[in-house]
Amino acid sequence: MTAVSAVKAALRKQAIETPSWAYGNSGTRFKVFAQPGVPRTPREKLDDAARVHAHTGVAPTVALHIPWDRVDDYAGLARYAKERGLSLGAINSNVFQDDDYRLGSVCHPDAAVRRKALDHLLECVDIMDATGSRDLKLWFADGTNYPGQDDIRARQERLAEALAAVYERLGGGQRMLLEYKFFEPAFYTTDVPDWGTAYAHCLRLGEKAQVVVDTGHHAPGTNIEFIVAVLLREGKLGGFDFNSRFYADDDLMVGSADPFQLFRIMYEVVRGGGYGPRTAFMLDQCHNIEAKIPAIIRSVMNVQEATAKALLVDREALSAAQACGDVLAANAVLMDAYNTDVRPLLAEVREEMGLDPDPVAAYHRSGWAERITEDRKGGRQAGWGA
Amino acid sequence: MTAVSAVKAALRKQAIETPSWAYGNSGTRFKVFAQPGVPRTPREKLDDAARVHAHTGVAPTVALHIPWDRVDDYAGLARYAKERGLSLGAINSNVFQDDDYRLGSVCHPDAAVRRKALDHLLECVDIMDATGSRDLKLWFADGTNYPGQDDIRARQERLAEALAAVYERLGGGQRMLLEYKFFEPAFYTTDVPDWGTAYAHCLRLGEKAQVVVDTGHHAPGTNIEFIVAVLLREGKLGGFDFNSRFYADDDLMVGSADPFQLFRIMYEVVRGGGYGPRTAFMLDQCHNIEAKIPAIIRSVMNVQEATAKALLVDREALSAAQACGDVLAANAVLMDAYNTDVRPLLAEVREEMGLDPDPVAAYHRSGWAERITEDRKGGRQAGWGA
Amino acid sequence: MTAVSAVKAALRKQAIETPSWAYGNSGTRFKVFAQPGVPRTPREKLDDAARVHAHTGVAPTVALHIPWDRVDDYAGLARYAKERGLSLGAINSNVFQDDDYRLGSVCHPDAAVRRKALDHLLECVDIMDATGSRDLKLWFADGTNYPGQDDIRARQERLAEALAAVYERLGGGQRMLLEYKFFEPAFYTTDVPDWGTAYAHCLRLGEKAQVVVDTGHHAPGTNIEFIVAVLLREGKLGGFDFNSRFYADDDLMVGSADPFQLFRIMYEVVRGGGYGPRTAFMLDQCHNIEAKIPAIIRSVMNVQEATAKALLVDREALSAAQACGDVLAANAVLMDAYNTDVRPLLAEVREEMGLDPDPVAAYHRSGWAERITEDRKGGRQAGWGA
Amino acid sequence: MTAVSAVKAALRKQAIETPSWAYGNSGTRFKVFAQPGVPRTPREKLDDAARVHAHTGVAPTVALHIPWDRVDDYAGLARYAKERGLSLGAINSNVFQDDDYRLGSVCHPDAAVRRKALDHLLECVDIMDATGSRDLKLWFADGTNYPGQDDIRARQERLAEALAAVYERLGGGQRMLLEYKFFEPAFYTTDVPDWGTAYAHCLRLGEKAQVVVDTGHHAPGTNIEFIVAVLLREGKLGGFDFNSRFYADDDLMVGSADPFQLFRIMYEVVRGGGYGPRTAFMLDQCHNIEAKIPAIIRSVMNVQEATAKALLVDREALSAAQACGDVLAANAVLMDAYNTDVRPLLAEVREEMGLDPDPVAAYHRSGWAERITEDRKGGRQAGWGA
Repeated sequence: MTAVSAVKAALRKQAIETPSWAYGNSGTRFKVFAQPGVPRTPREKLDDAARVHAHTGVAPTVALHIPWDRVDDYAGLARYAKERGLSLGAINSNVFQDDDYRLGSVCHPDAAVRRKALDHLLECVDIMDATGSRDLKLWFADGTNYPGQDDIRARQERLAEALAAVYERLGGGQRMLLEYKFFEPAFYTTDVPDWGTAYAHCLRLGEKAQVVVDTGHHAPGTNIEFIVAVLLREGKLGGFDFNSRFYADDDLMVGSADPFQLFRIMYEVVRGGGYGPRTAFMLDQCHNIEAKIPAIIRSVMNVQEATAKALLVDREALSAAQACGDVLAANAVLMDAYNTDVRPLLAEVREEMGLDPDPVAAYHRSGWAERITEDRKGGRQAGWGA
Repeated sequence: MTAVSAVKAALRKQAIETPSWAYGNSGTRFKVFAQPGVPRTPREKLDDAARVHAHTGVAPTVALHIPWDRVDDYAGLARYAKERGLSLGAINSNVFQDDDYRLGSVCHPDAAVRRKALDHLLECVDIMDATGSRDLKLWFADGTNYPGQDDIRARQERLAEALAAVYERLGGGQRMLLEYKFFEPAFYTTDVPDWGTAYAHCLRLGEKAQVVVDTGHHAPGTNIEFIVAVLLREGKLGGFDFNSRFYADDDLMVGSADPFQLFRIMYEVVRGGGYGPRTAFMLDQCHNIEAKIPAIIRSVMNVQEATAKALLVDREALSAAQACGDVLAANAVLMDAYNTDVRPLLAEVREEMGLDPDPVAAYHRSGWAERITEDRKGGRQAGWGA
Repeated sequence: MTAVSAVKAALRKQAIETPSWAYGNSGTRFKVFAQPGVPRTPREKLDDAARVHAHTGVAPTVALHIPWDRVDDYAGLARYAKERGLSLGAINSNVFQDDDYRLGSVCHPDAAVRRKALDHLLECVDIMDATGSRDLKLWFADGTNYPGQDDIRARQERLAEALAAVYERLGGGQRMLLEYKFFEPAFYTTDVPDWGTAYAHCLRLGEKAQVVVDTGHHAPGTNIEFIVAVLLREGKLGGFDFNSRFYADDDLMVGSADPFQLFRIMYEVVRGGGYGPRTAFMLDQCHNIEAKIPAIIRSVMNVQEATAKALLVDREALSAAQACGDVLAANAVLMDAYNTDVRPLLAEVREEMGLDPDPVAAYHRSGWAERITEDRKGGRQAGWGA
Repeated sequence: MTAVSAVKAALRKQAIETPSWAYGNSGTRFKVFAQPGVPRTPREKLDDAARVHAHTGVAPTVALHIPWDRVDDYAGLARYAKERGLSLGAINSNVFQDDDYRLGSVCHPDAAVRRKALDHLLECVDIMDATGSRDLKLWFADGTNYPGQDDIRARQERLAEALAAVYERLGGGQRMLLEYKFFEPAFYTTDVPDWGTAYAHCLRLGEKAQVVVDTGHHAPGTNIEFIVAVLLREGKLGGFDFNSRFYADDDLMVGSADPFQLFRIMYEVVRGGGYGPRTAFMLDQCHNIEAKIPAIIRSVMNVQEATAKALLVDREALSAAQACGDVLAANAVLMDAYNTDVRPLLAEVREEMGLDPDPVAAYHRSGWAERITEDRKGGRQAGWGA
């Protein structure tokens, strides 16, 4: 029997990284709806992230996106974060928003463009040195839209070359997290389309290269928890970009489209020994139509709830049912945990941490939304393009 | 045996409408890559469309998108088109790019927003009166991102109410083409997500309401030619928005992802009596990374090639094989037509129409690309947002 | 606020029909794994169904499948059911397992095959007269595997003709439930592939023709609750075939793959006024590897749990949040109900009905499994083919 | 410029393996439609395969499936094949049709079942020794239907253990081809669901372990040619199981659902140096409703046509267009080859090989179908279960 106190202890030390860009405006190709109070600077994003952490207690780090969060003084930004109880997390590179990248970045047919992209990636490692970040997250929009447009295999060679150069540059405690994505913005081939491709590259690179699983980046029907189990078995699961979707890379709040899937994923994390600091648990979402800060709080809570349920699985009973091939009993053990209402347990955990048991209500009462709506008038709101 | 001369005659009178917005910039949510020479005004878009028609001979009309093509004098714009051998085609409404439309347009919970959206739709009919356009194309981005966000059924009521008001306003020769889309930009529910929903609304409205099939707007694996056959049987196929995709609504050049599917669609059009002016054959594509005008020329040619193959199907032999249940023979008759290289036939058709047999090469030789690159410096390039 | 007593009352009168064939053997094209104790006759299937009803209290009817449940005396079979506290439910026709049906049944190119299929459907109505069944469930395996194999539209005509003949034969209180399916066993076209096609046919036929939604019969990503809402609005939702799936028509236990989806479906049923005897709630599943009777009990419980959560939604609060466009609040109201652990509530309902609060445990204690394993040796086990 | 004579030479030496089981009966879970003249023994299957080779000239080997093709004297069977101009190809293991395999084979929780499955695999290597086959093809139906049913990771361990034991047993020139499959017959997890999992296992095993790509075994939308390119780059592409599909693992005739995809796959094979004897090109199809032998002939021809087009791609022009980033020109080079009608070229190739230019017509004229219909009366027709 899982002791509730052990579950609580595990939940207290949970750490979910929020992405700086989720505090800014985002949208679809059809329209970006601006929201009042959106941050205009990296520091204002950190201010918002600090609210999320203040109310949840489990969001102590913030991922940066370069160049969207470019500042002159990264060490200064790190100090700013620290003063607010935060630290800076993964550095996310961006090699898809320059006009030069129309046909790709590190996989581009033109060596000059590849060089430019590589320089950006290396710059990101410089930034990591300054911020003290452990993880470099690499997502490449590279791919092609039309059969024949470029040579699939040559692009793999170019990719491998760039990755090797970046890997070489990594310092002692630093890691490279390679993200894969099924499609978008490329619509025919994507150069890192699946976990297998990411895995194959990471394997050649070495131990510091790890695969990151974005929960919205798979073909329809893909069993994500299986991938998690396999990557953990291979020692190659670097972390998650959490979000959810009904269709493609919808980037909805994690757990909002299929909470049962999120639970199954978290169960494999726990079962495979991946619940701990070696695995980066990050959100990567777009709050296009809903209020951003409470949506992020809600997302953090959704991950907490899935984790709590995963931790509550009676693994001894599960193993016993599995061992004797009792399909229904084994499934019932798992569902028992899933069907448990863990909100009271999490309310207790929060109270034990000195927090309000209802983070969303506490946020709404805090007046923060009204304050930033008032204070952040004028200037240019942060968004994907800035 | 299908007489080649009849096939040629049918191909000569083909009409494929090009969309004004495909001449402007487009992209994904990640980046819009601007291209040199892109039109800055509706008139410049018509200039480009005139080049497509000049080289292909089968693209005589241009669809407008309001407000992207808003002008003071629509009759004047129609005259401008006529002077270039074109006429104005379908009017496409846009009720998704105003901040008010964050939660929908005609399905919005707020009656004031619905009224605003309806007014826009009615304005589009006014524009049709001025341009002489027959078809009002309605695509609604309306939907929700999260379960519970709004009431699915209430939104249908609101939709029905708006459609009825627009239908009422249509003049004698005017039609309403209702488009459906599986998802995007809404990621949980879409208010017109499938042909069934569009059909049910059109049925209640009356004969002037017809369904338009966008070839990129279906769930994975959907058999589009089946839908075409059924809609033609029901007298409810108003037209097509042509494009192609490997994944979601990729908006690639029609025929580039699955040319066999395009052939099968055109075969059902021909077989079902839908090849003629009652069916609107329109392109609706995004040329995000490729040169726009030659991409549109190529797209028009792709539709021509699929049509030629569809017209070449030996329907007598096909019926005979079908009637006796000879699966392989029936399939072989269809494949015979598909496997035919129809490019020489189309080259002949073009020459008989006084055109260059190779439209892409002729376009490249024409110097138009160089000219617009030079002439259209400065100003603001057209795009989805303007 | 929803009164718990009203919720309990609604749960007590719930009725979930179990399918006779789920008690027999089933499998995939690769292998049917026989299980001990499987019924050999329709009466033995009813014996098992009676156990499910005895333990759950909400499974009072059993669907028959003809010819799998063919008997000489249907009135006698109905009496046999009645003696066990059951009544006979929907009659399911089968026009796909005769060698004649290789290329279809009512859509077959050969009129003689069509006539044979139609005769079977009419026979099913005769059986309904004898059993007192209200609903004739029609699922057609008809379709084609290869482009060109048969004429899509001609098959629609043949289908319409057969449906009209069956409709004509229906008695006063009888209904025809037309089922659609995305694919399988046909792999290119399916003659009733989506709700739109089923709806269009039912509309022409009249009020007694209704659409049945099998939850495993949709394209990947399809929003089923939307279809439910639309069909209820149109007065055309006849019922459900419940099961669940991760991939295609997996026919797993309902609620086992995506319990949140099942909840959303049941919410739309409740919201749209579909919770009542007019809607047929049936299971249609295959218990290929798990013990059948407890799997069916579990499935019934899964529907109960989803229904309880749907009934618990605070619709007033939901409407209020929806009306003011508060995306997160509206979503939270729905999720509140979903996240509730309704198992204690259902245990109370069962106790109030004089039942064991834990139907699965009660079944296991009952000794039924051991008894049928012993008693049903020899003979030929029931399965899809018999 | 590709010299036509080189293309012809390449086409003449093409080798496409046909599967013994495709000559037998097959079907869906709903029905197996028996066909007249179907073989009753492995030798009769070889007789049919000899006809396919006689008419096409490029189908010189036949894959066996154990136990469906179990005989007492495999060397004798190999001689029988040789006398008919054939040789025996890959040995396909079957660890999914015994009652013991309800919950898996080499991944089963029970060690005794795993041992039984392993013994079968080792027996298959014995058979390879006798037949002189190079390739052992491993497809595992292993997986689970319900979350929690078994431990995902433990099953990977068991799988790895079995694969290692088989690998150890392989002789000098022998290889193990590991097949992956998205789903079916398992509906929740599949133990080798994607190329990444197969690749990871093969990598650990060594050079004799290679991945086999079944073209019907992917998630919707998966870019198969990308996987081909990547596996060739990694030296891990062992071969293909060719078939085609619109939906899931439909097992239709290769090239019938998406001929353009087949061409793209063959292009990557050619481009990546995979066109040659190291890559096993096998059919794996089900001719459920169409005549089997002509369907197989047609399938062989479809592969030939796709190969011819792939060989005709002007790779120099393609590289040039790719190098300068001319998206449309590069796509046009590829499409030029695809749009070519290669049937006249293949007719010439056949005539140069002393064959009838139209293999299907020649088969129909040969009287073989009538002869086997007459001769093979009585006895038990071969099928998946025997």
